[in-house]
Amino acid sequence: MGEKIIYLDREFREEFIDKIKSIAPNYTIKTDLTEEELPDVEISLGWNRNYQEKLLASDHLKWVQSISAGVDTLPLDKFAEKEILVSNGSGIHSESIAEHIMGIILGYSRGLFQAQRAQVAKKWLGSNVHYQPLENQKVLIIGTGKIGKMVAKKATGFDMECYGINTSGHPVDGFKQTYPLEELSEIVSEMTIVVNILPLTEETKGLFNGELFKKFNRQAVLINVGRGASLKTDELVVALNEGRLAFAALDVFEEEPLPYDSPLWEMDNVLLTSHIAGLTPDFQNKLMKIFLDNLQSYMTNHELKVNQVELNKGY
Amino acid sequence: MGEKIIYLDREFREEFIDKIKSIAPNYTIKTDLTEEELPDVEISLGWNRNYQEKLLASDHLKWVQSISAGVDTLPLDKFAEKEILVSNGSGIHSESIAEHIMGIILGYSRGLFQAQRAQVAKKWLGSNVHYQPLENQKVLIIGTGKIGKMVAKKATGFDMECYGINTSGHPVDGFKQTYPLEELSEIVSEMTIVVNILPLTEETKGLFNGELFKKFNRQAVLINVGRGASLKTDELVVALNEGRLAFAALDVFEEEPLPYDSPLWEMDNVLLTSHIAGLTPDFQNKLMKIFLDNLQSYMTNHELKVNQVELNKGY
Repeated sequence: MGEKIIYLDREFREEFIDKIKSIAPNYTIKTDLTEEELPDVEISLGWNRNYQEKLLASDHLKWVQSISAGVDTLPLDKFAEKEILVSNGSGIHSESIAEHIMGIILGYSRGLFQAQRAQVAKKWLGSNVHYQPLENQKVLIIGTGKIGKMVAKKATGFDMECYGINTSGHPVDGFKQTYPLEELSEIVSEMTIVVNILPLTEETKGLFNGELFKKFNRQAVLINVGRGASLKTDELVVALNEGRLAFAALDVFEEEPLPYDSPLWEMDNVLLTSHIAGLTPDFQNKLMKIFLDNLQSYMTNHELKVNQVELNKGY
Repeated sequence: MGEKIIYLDREFREEFIDKIKSIAPNYTIKTDLTEEELPDVEISLGWNRNYQEKLLASDHLKWVQSISAGVDTLPLDKFAEKEILVSNGSGIHSESIAEHIMGIILGYSRGLFQAQRAQVAKKWLGSNVHYQPLENQKVLIIGTGKIGKMVAKKATGFDMECYGINTSGHPVDGFKQTYPLEELSEIVSEMTIVVNILPLTEETKGLFNGELFKKFNRQAVLINVGRGASLKTDELVVALNEGRLAFAALDVFEEEPLPYDSPLWEMDNVLLTSHIAGLTPDFQNKLMKIFLDNLQSYMTNHELKVNQVELNKGY
């Protein structure tokens, strides 16, 4: 006992380790922990489930820096109880996710996924593909945080009309109009592209369900890069088969990997991606920018400078 | 004889026929021609090969409005000889083609085509996909006309660096730098995305060949939405197999439909589309905007207002 430990749940480049040491010279940095060291962890970058019980049993854990934007898999109640600070990785993946979303919108609108399927089947489609201009398409971006704003900016560059949804409906720059979450089912029918970026909370669990799909525009494309549990997969399959919406692109699932008996695999009005929307080769740089900023302020006054999670809200 | 005919090679909506009639009240409008009527055609919208011989034999043909931007399939020599005016459809397809190109760049950069293939094969890729940020990628846009400029604008919205190639190397707004066509092989190695939008002329025939591919960056993506004959397919296949470039997206081919024995069909570093980049649901509106503008000026002073083709240049 007595050592103060900063635990990193993965390896980082030496330049970053050096910076951590210079900001927190009295701490020991570990990427593996022995049983004896577990109670001495004060700061955890990433959250290792194997250590969860012991870390929560100790009184020394003070701050958890999550690697992802969503913190729904963390024991937030416990953190709140013990007044452990939590910050998330919001912003790290924004650019990648915005590009993923725009890639889906453009790929669908130019028949590129259809073309890729036809190529595999050795079929020349001629002009027998679905195509539509982006101009004046109405896109509903559910979640108007960093990612949502970035999507709105890119989409506006293609002359799309961007509408937003957030909890209170407060206006956000770059959106033509914003609505509170509870108005989703009233306005969704006007939208031809619907993008879910919301974190998983009590309010968003099962949000995309059969009742909501009945309100969708039949030409609509649904993109889910938020959380799998926000969408009822079985009800989406039914809705797609009934033509209640035209296409769905899913990056997250209730169960991952997606089970091989899921009907989604064989549906040609679905594009499946394997939770890749946020992948970025620049991950270490971006995460460390957040972590080092927070480490500096934590060392100064035990506060976090950026990305602090409100534990009662869950994001 | 004696009738003056405007021939339309396809049906147009009544609103447009009415406008043609109001601008050219002394002309008869036909979408089918009898043997007797062929010599009376003065204006041809579109070019019907079945009528070619008779139309060229007559002294009455004065103006051909092409439907596409490329006019390489038209008998330009004959038109020049007989001083027949030619205008092209440049601009009609610009938005669609720019969206197609951006769809390919984003789809490739976010692993979406790989994901579509994996889905068909019922394979969960996890994070085993190719991904790269668009920011700071160097894109070479070969052809800095309407389409090229639109691509540069969209690509700049993703913080890509846009370089251009045109015949003389003259500077163009929206491009960081432009080069003349003959410098292509010197600068291509610096580019990670290479887009061909050029028309087919003597200078561009076979431009993309084995020698040029040897200069490519091994990470590069080649997109051809120009003309099939600008690219030597066999040499591209060799270059891709040798890893001289990473990926090719082809919308046009030396022979269309692409023959079923082409090795391209089975290459997973290739995306094939069936000459669809320019498809637009707004085709009639956009073509008629050009044609009616030209019809007005043709009726006034036998000149064309927009999109006149320089017959000696071929575009």
